[in-house]
Amino acid sequence: MGSIAFDSVRTPFGERNRMLGGSAVHFSLAASFFTDVRVVGPVGDDFGDEEYEVLRERGVDTSDVERVAGRRTFFWRGRYEYDLNTAHTEETQLGVFGDFEPKLSPESRAAEALFLANIQPQLQRAVRGQCEARVAGLDSMNLWIETERDALLETIGEVDLLFMNDAEVRMLTEEPNLVRAARKVLAMGPRAVVAKQGEYGAALFSSDRFFSLPAYPLETVRDPTGAGDSFAGGFMGHLVSQGEGAGDDHDELRRAMTYGSVLASFNVEEFGTERVQKLTRDEIEARYEEFRAITSLSEVPTA
Amino acid sequence: MGSIAFDSVRTPFGERNRMLGGSAVHFSLAASFFTDVRVVGPVGDDFGDEEYEVLRERGVDTSDVERVAGRRTFFWRGRYEYDLNTAHTEETQLGVFGDFEPKLSPESRAAEALFLANIQPQLQRAVRGQCEARVAGLDSMNLWIETERDALLETIGEVDLLFMNDAEVRMLTEEPNLVRAARKVLAMGPRAVVAKQGEYGAALFSSDRFFSLPAYPLETVRDPTGAGDSFAGGFMGHLVSQGEGAGDDHDELRRAMTYGSVLASFNVEEFGTERVQKLTRDEIEARYEEFRAITSLSEVPTA
Repeated sequence: MGSIAFDSVRTPFGERNRMLGGSAVHFSLAASFFTDVRVVGPVGDDFGDEEYEVLRERGVDTSDVERVAGRRTFFWRGRYEYDLNTAHTEETQLGVFGDFEPKLSPESRAAEALFLANIQPQLQRAVRGQCEARVAGLDSMNLWIETERDALLETIGEVDLLFMNDAEVRMLTEEPNLVRAARKVLAMGPRAVVAKQGEYGAALFSSDRFFSLPAYPLETVRDPTGAGDSFAGGFMGHLVSQGEGAGDDHDELRRAMTYGSVLASFNVEEFGTERVQKLTRDEIEARYEEFRAITSLSEVPTA
Repeated sequence: MGSIAFDSVRTPFGERNRMLGGSAVHFSLAASFFTDVRVVGPVGDDFGDEEYEVLRERGVDTSDVERVAGRRTFFWRGRYEYDLNTAHTEETQLGVFGDFEPKLSPESRAAEALFLANIQPQLQRAVRGQCEARVAGLDSMNLWIETERDALLETIGEVDLLFMNDAEVRMLTEEPNLVRAARKVLAMGPRAVVAKQGEYGAALFSSDRFFSLPAYPLETVRDPTGAGDSFAGGFMGHLVSQGEGAGDDHDELRRAMTYGSVLASFNVEEFGTERVQKLTRDEIEARYEEFRAITSLSEVPTA
């Protein structure tokens, strides 16, 4: 559950106008390589067959996409400078998100796992309350830490996995050391914290373990929009595909980190959903093996 | 070869006045756990037996430490805020470094390996010219990129390993993408580039390989001064200890990255040289194994 959007993005490598985007879209496409996915979120009159088709081609169930008559789809316009870690927002049109009240279908309520993409904490919490999921993940951002701190803390207390940028984990806990900051989050309820570190990769903290993975060394990053959601999609998709108990298995959590990093690395190679739309499972597995090679302390035999 | 210094440092965790420091000191202490080390650099009248003793206790040969009568030892005063990645320099006194002309003894000229710590590129180049070393490493910084760019580029062309902060690798090559930036450095001559990434760890680029390692997840970093030099000391110390050819062996380069990270992680646990002075080889090996565990895609059996 999250935003379904049109994004206009400009980076040093080009631009796109009103392409399909949104956190729920990027997450769903990434997770669809591993498990069945239902996407939940509102769209407006301007959301057409072409956009639905991108999701359906990857097998994503769109029956919980709520179409609001007389309103427009969420719109974001932004740009990135050469420092592709920082997005500069130039325009946001809430559209259908202005008064969205999520109502999950019985099928979505019964989902095994739930990802609450980065939207208002109250909306995330309302959806968590409707869903039986045995594993719930949540992403959030500095805006909600500043404006909806209490609601965000309550919502974090009701999920199993927290995905956040490392600077935001520090900000949320008011603790400059990331190890201590992650420990504070674990004390709030989640079983694991994934601190996303942009071009530096990601770090996973659980009660007794730490695991870190670099980002894939890409020569060309065209558009980082959606990378964090693709990461979460690969992570949770893999974890769910391994059945009950995988969320407590450290080997599976490490593999989930790697699949998350793989999907994020493909996401940023092209604009918006362009690369993930044409991605194959074989490409995913090949890059997974590359991750083993670039992080292993001894050479990994090539396949 | 590099600076031998007195450092006055203030961090959120305390302060020290005129403690032993300097790039050559931190490097030498770290490398001394792996191989024989000779330290080259100038000191003034104020450098006493107590300071020599710190180096000699770790077996570092100080016969090429040049004592300049009537001058004072290089002095640096700086502070760190909660963001321990950025040092704020408050005072620098060049002292003996004002007109230092390094002259290597026959023993130092015959050294197998040479590390040119971060000082003026012309001095680094003069020392490189005097030393037969089959492996030479170099560290530098933004100051020299800005003020001595041509001399720095020539010096880089004469070494095998470049150690630099990732932002400085980008700045040196005027290339925002680190992968491309590292490739540009490799085209200048070095066989490998180590991009130091502070709290995010370090990445190694060679002509056909990439390897990345996170920093050790410390809850308390008291003083990051010297971490980069300790990294280089662990890295080159291990490499040299493995004999000729190790610099072309990717397994050894990965192990060197790990020993570098281990030494840097201990360096920052206390102020200045305090932690490395009392470090043991057993502690180094234990943390090496921890690095294997936190980066391995499958569980590493505990020893």
